[in-house]
Amino acid sequence: MSASPLDHAPSTTHLSYEALTLLLQRIFIRQGTSESVAQVLAENCASAERDGAHSHGVFRVPGYVSTLNSGWVDGKAVPIVEDVASGFVRVDAVNGFAQPALAAARSLLVDKARSAGIALLAIHNSHHFAALWPDVEPFAEEGLVALSVVNSMTCVVPHGADRPLFGTNPIAFAAPRADGPPIVFDLATSAIAHGDVQIAARKGERLPPGMGVDSLGQPTQDPKAILEGGALLPFGGHKGSALSMMVELLAAALTGGNFSFEFNWSDHPGARTPWTGQLVILIDPSKTTGQNFAERSQELVRQMHAAGLRRLPGDRRHRSRAKSQEIGIEINAQDLKQLQELAED
Amino acid sequence: MSASPLDHAPSTTHLSYEALTLLLQRIFIRQGTSESVAQVLAENCASAERDGAHSHGVFRVPGYVSTLNSGWVDGKAVPIVEDVASGFVRVDAVNGFAQPALAAARSLLVDKARSAGIALLAIHNSHHFAALWPDVEPFAEEGLVALSVVNSMTCVVPHGADRPLFGTNPIAFAAPRADGPPIVFDLATSAIAHGDVQIAARKGERLPPGMGVDSLGQPTQDPKAILEGGALLPFGGHKGSALSMMVELLAAALTGGNFSFEFNWSDHPGARTPWTGQLVILIDPSKTTGQNFAERSQELVRQMHAAGLRRLPGDRRHRSRAKSQEIGIEINAQDLKQLQELAED
Repeated sequence: MSASPLDHAPSTTHLSYEALTLLLQRIFIRQGTSESVAQVLAENCASAERDGAHSHGVFRVPGYVSTLNSGWVDGKAVPIVEDVASGFVRVDAVNGFAQPALAAARSLLVDKARSAGIALLAIHNSHHFAALWPDVEPFAEEGLVALSVVNSMTCVVPHGADRPLFGTNPIAFAAPRADGPPIVFDLATSAIAHGDVQIAARKGERLPPGMGVDSLGQPTQDPKAILEGGALLPFGGHKGSALSMMVELLAAALTGGNFSFEFNWSDHPGARTPWTGQLVILIDPSKTTGQNFAERSQELVRQMHAAGLRRLPGDRRHRSRAKSQEIGIEINAQDLKQLQELAED
Repeated sequence: MSASPLDHAPSTTHLSYEALTLLLQRIFIRQGTSESVAQVLAENCASAERDGAHSHGVFRVPGYVSTLNSGWVDGKAVPIVEDVASGFVRVDAVNGFAQPALAAARSLLVDKARSAGIALLAIHNSHHFAALWPDVEPFAEEGLVALSVVNSMTCVVPHGADRPLFGTNPIAFAAPRADGPPIVFDLATSAIAHGDVQIAARKGERLPPGMGVDSLGQPTQDPKAILEGGALLPFGGHKGSALSMMVELLAAALTGGNFSFEFNWSDHPGARTPWTGQLVILIDPSKTTGQNFAERSQELVRQMHAAGLRRLPGDRRHRSRAKSQEIGIEINAQDLKQLQELAED
């Protein structure tokens, strides 16, 4: 158990976004996805890693592999897009991932939003295992305001209840602004994201108070106690809990998807991806009266800085992105080795 | 200062919803509103009192009177409705109240939502001084899902900032369900509603920790310190703060209304109503695939009860409503006397 000096300087390497995407693509194809699904998932996962959103980056790959191998999700699913009304698009993801379903409906949805002023995308029969901000940010880069919600799997105790029912149920929002990248946030309605609990458990770190309960329903700061039969709490008490309930209604009831407590993956050992639904709402701010929206959102940012706010939602991601673009995406050598093994035929 | 037995049994009286509405209508007309504006505001205010939402009931009347007398808001404004696109309606409230603007656009908005599947109402140049749930609940009673946000006036310090910038910026949501009244919530994105701080100050009560700061930016539990140069905090830390920012973008930037920090009422002593904007989104869940939405939301409620939740958002209001319908709306005799004086010619 003697430690060499190298143990104190864990070996890392740097990959370009393109190289990481290609590597991830090979992994997904190797695990039985179609080429188009592999591309969507690889870009999503590489973007998260590039932006320093580690809980949704390459950390997720073993989960993807496990869930694909279990037969729980169809990596070759071809989404079915239905044009329902002038502002309403439905997609049946056919038990595939949600991101390819969004990609399949994307241009129709954008056209509808620009024409009707607002449009809704209801994805059901889908698996979402990624961060939510990559789903909304690109719309804001095209000048649209985007809101998305996705429900997940039972792990959050509603405020005032005894047992978990809701998923972590994130809400993501993106809006264009004049002199900078879009304003983007992606927040779990749980007090902490499930991926962050997993990362804390792996690192052996304790959580701040108020994040979760153990298997007996007692407050705990031990991430392992939360993962092993415990549960998360909603953020912000009854208000966060109400928002989580809203996400169940919008992402599941309104899409025709499963609630977070409805699917049963016990016949698929290794299944990791919640089989639920996702809602996306796009708004075209050019229909607004008065001053250009992006100028107005820029003014809000200016005033937020003037009020002493140093960091906007998304700022940390953009700093990580800039660094990654300059020197490459930093990957732990051991993680890279594991990825390369997964990509081998 | 000797106390008679009567001091310990404050005199109350009971009014029917209709009687209270008529009394309030007379007050509003007496203060210079048009008959139609008086009716909308009176019904709104009486509904809040009937439902036990005291911070937005008759408690608000002196504020309405003060703001109307100050000339800050136009009680006779006739809203201008613009049909912008198949899913987008704009209303210029012409410096009047937001509720008559919503009423003026209501049938067009509902038609668009039923046709396009989703529709957006952008109200600007408006004053919102009431609870937000009365704006969304009626849509859910007609089978639609409704979401609304309104920004207000600078009184909330963004998470991580030094000075207040945002308003209390509530989010209200309503969804139909099969075997009961709609699921409705209305939550300030501040840790506490401004009206509740005012009520606590009036009663001389202290607030729970984490609600606000004093004029020096230091945490305080004294409601008067918050009202006199202090400020509120957002609920749920950076997440509630992000949602409050979203409300500024949706209710102001997207409607053409003022941000919470933009209007200046210093030339109108007695002005009380924030001059901002409001956004309403309606969704027609009959466009959804699969099972009826109201059946699905009923299933969610059933499971929330099964998980040990005793009280849903809105339950307390509905219990108060049922009691008011049975025995009348309870009003403090002193408050009633004040209302009657305000209604006198």
